[in-house]
Order: sequence, then structure tokens, then C-alpha cells
Amino acid sequence: MTAAVTAFAWVPPFAQGFVRDLRVRWALEEAGLPYDVDLLALGDTDSEAYRRRQPFGQVPVWRDDAVDMFESGAIVLHIAEQSERLAPSDPAGRARVTSWVIAALNSVEPFAQNLATLDSFHAGQPWVEGYRPVARASLERRLTSLSRWLGDRDWLEDRFTAGDIMMVTVLRELVACGILKAFPNLDAYHARGIGRPAFIKALGDQMQTFEQNAPA
Amino acid sequence: MTAAVTAFAWVPPFAQGFVRDLRVRWALEEAGLPYDVDLLALGDTDSEAYRRRQPFGQVPVWRDDAVDMFESGAIVLHIAEQSERLAPSDPAGRARVTSWVIAALNSVEPFAQNLATLDSFHAGQPWVEGYRPVARASLERRLTSLSRWLGDRDWLEDRFTAGDIMMVTVLRELVACGILKAFPNLDAYHARGIGRPAFIKALGDQMQTFEQNAPA
Repeated sequence: MTAAVTAFAWVPPFAQGFVRDLRVRWALEEAGLPYDVDLLALGDTDSEAYRRRQPFGQVPVWRDDAVDMFESGAIVLHIAEQSERLAPSDPAGRARVTSWVIAALNSVEPFAQNLATLDSFHAGQPWVEGYRPVARASLERRLTSLSRWLGDRDWLEDRFTAGDIMMVTVLRELVACGILKAFPNLDAYHARGIGRPAFIKALGDQMQTFEQNAPA
Repeated sequence: MTAAVTAFAWVPPFAQGFVRDLRVRWALEEAGLPYDVDLLALGDTDSEAYRRRQPFGQVPVWRDDAVDMFESGAIVLHIAEQSERLAPSDPAGRARVTSWVIAALNSVEPFAQNLATLDSFHAGQPWVEGYRPVARASLERRLTSLSRWLGDRDWLEDRFTAGDIMMVTVLRELVACGILKAFPNLDAYHARGIGRPAFIKALGDQMQTFEQNAPA
């Protein structure tokens, strides 16, 4: 059995390039591992069968000869165990990668999403004007800490790892709101990440599927 | 070297019992592993030395003979690799635990925190009245999915795992706002978790330190 990730056949334009199978595809391209894609229609993630694989009805789910699992961060950690290109194989190095994967998902992304969703989903609501400065300040604190850590490094540790896959894709959610321009080293770090051939291939593959399955 | 987790000597009452070394202590108690505690004063987490171990200035950080790492979820996953009591040792079972640890931290906790922090930190702000129903609806969608998954199971999988440590501590952040009462099986799951002797010991140890170091 070839390993397979779930992905949507098509999503509306605002979500194109942001569905989280992108992270898994990027990790697989970095590692040079082959994979299949199980394509889903938008409503399929609410089916009983899919919910048995993904309790929250999200994309992606992953299966291979050994596992059936969900959450993009968990899948990327699983793939990272199979390739030195994604994580050192010694315990000390692996622990740093696990720390950064979870830092991206719990210490940065929630704050990024709070600001990003204001613009995408709640624009014009009367409460947004009051909440936006609060959400922005919370995010700025996290980005200030991250920027201070990164300094003039290329990557979060002394080499590219799966932690960078997660952090770069989280920062990428912030491009539309422009806040990265206030953190030049994070802006450059994000650009370095999305300039990698493996990211470009992964993004191209997701987008090509949407083009092929666009509604008439 | 005995393994050691960082913890605060004292925090204000609203944070007592909620600092995230609790998750690490709980995992260690379940596994029956000994550990030391490196106590910090509140401002210590902003020092250059601490930021080199924890870029966001958070508690906890963990060190043992093999690793120096941060993020409670990452530390709990690391400890789970050392004890069958926290995770099955086969790849399929381990992958489920990793999935649930990250689901707790990325698919549930951000929505729980958005609602919980409204009451703790922003009560009375004019924008809260408009935002609260939005935050509550987002959280309810996640809790509905989780409740549907859990059904009449005792734990997220067919046995207690490190995934339950993370999910129960996330749900515990919601006790004050009362929303768990709308999800009886989640409310019972939470009660089952915090009724475990290892949780009670871990919480007692964190609270005892605060009592011993309370300001005069």
C-alpha cells in the first residue's frame, strides 16, 4: 500500500493553497517519499466514515502501512521520524523538532488565526474594531519573541527541520494582514521557507488539483 | 542528573493550578518517573538565559540526560516514549497518541482559550458582548465533534494515554465558564481525568509550592 493523505478536490479561492495537506505534502517532498492523494468533496468530511478517521472533520488524514492518524502536525512528526532531511535522528535533536512543531501550533498559530480570521470572516462586524487591537497585541508579543529567538539564523535550529515547515506555514497565514513587514527577519525567514523547491512543488500540486476540479 | 521541569515558585491565585508544568507532572506521576523542579520567580522567564531555553518565556522547560526541550505537549510526548502507561509502544498506537496530543493543542485549546480569556481578562470591555457569541459558537463546534467521537468511551482511545492528559487539561480550562455542562459525556470525561490519583498528586504538588512561597 502506498501511503496516502486526504485532500480536497476543490475549495473556494480564499482557502486554496492553505488547506493543511500542504504541510504534509511539503514534508514528503523534502523527504523524497512517494504518496497518494485521497480526494474528497467538501461535504465528505462530515460523513460518519470520515469522522471515524478525523473526529473534527478536518483535512488531512494520513495512512501508511503502520498507522492511521490525523492532525497535520502529528503527521509531519511521523514523517520526520523516517527522514534525516526533516529531523536529526538523535534524541536531543528530535526533541527540539517536536518542541518547535508544537510551539508553531500552540504558541503562535492560535494568535495568528485570531487576527487573520477577523479580516477573512468578520470584516465589518461592530465588535471587530474593539477586538482587533487586543488580538494584534497578543500576536505581536509572540512574533517579538520568535523574532528575538531567530535573530540572524536561517532556520529555528542550526539546520532546516520539520519545525520550520510548521512555523513557516503558520507565518504564511499572516501575509495578507501585512504584520510580517514589522518583523524583517521573520519576513525573510518566511520567504526562505516558501522559496524551497519542496514547498513550491507541494503548493503546485495542491493548486493543480483545484484547477482540474474547478466547478464549471 | 535527575530530570527536571521548570515551575513558578508562586503565581497569582487565578493562575494557580493552571500553569502548564501541571501536565508534565501528571505524565510523570502516571509513569512513576522521578523528577526535580527548578523553581522560577515570575520575572525569571524574561531573562536571556531562560529565553535561550524557552523562546516565548513560558513554563515549563524540561531537561534530562538526553534532551533540553520546551512546550508541555512536546515534553509529554517525550515522556510518553518512556512509559507504556502513557502510550502503546507500537507505531499504530503511538501515532494515535501523537494525533490526540496535537488535536488537544491545536483543534480544541485555541477555541477554549478564546472564550475563557474573555471572562478572565476582558470582562466589561465593550467589544466582548459582540465577540462572545462568535467565540462560543466556534468552541461549541469543536466540543460537539469531540463529544460525538467520545460517545460512551472512558478515554479518547481504548485506554488512557498521554492524549487524555492533554485533552482533560484543556477541558479543565473551561470549568469556570460552565460550557461543559452542555456536553455531559465530556463533563464526565473531564471528571474521570481529574479524579485519577496521578492528577491529584500532580496538582497538589504544584499548589503546595505556591502555598510555601506565598508573598507575606
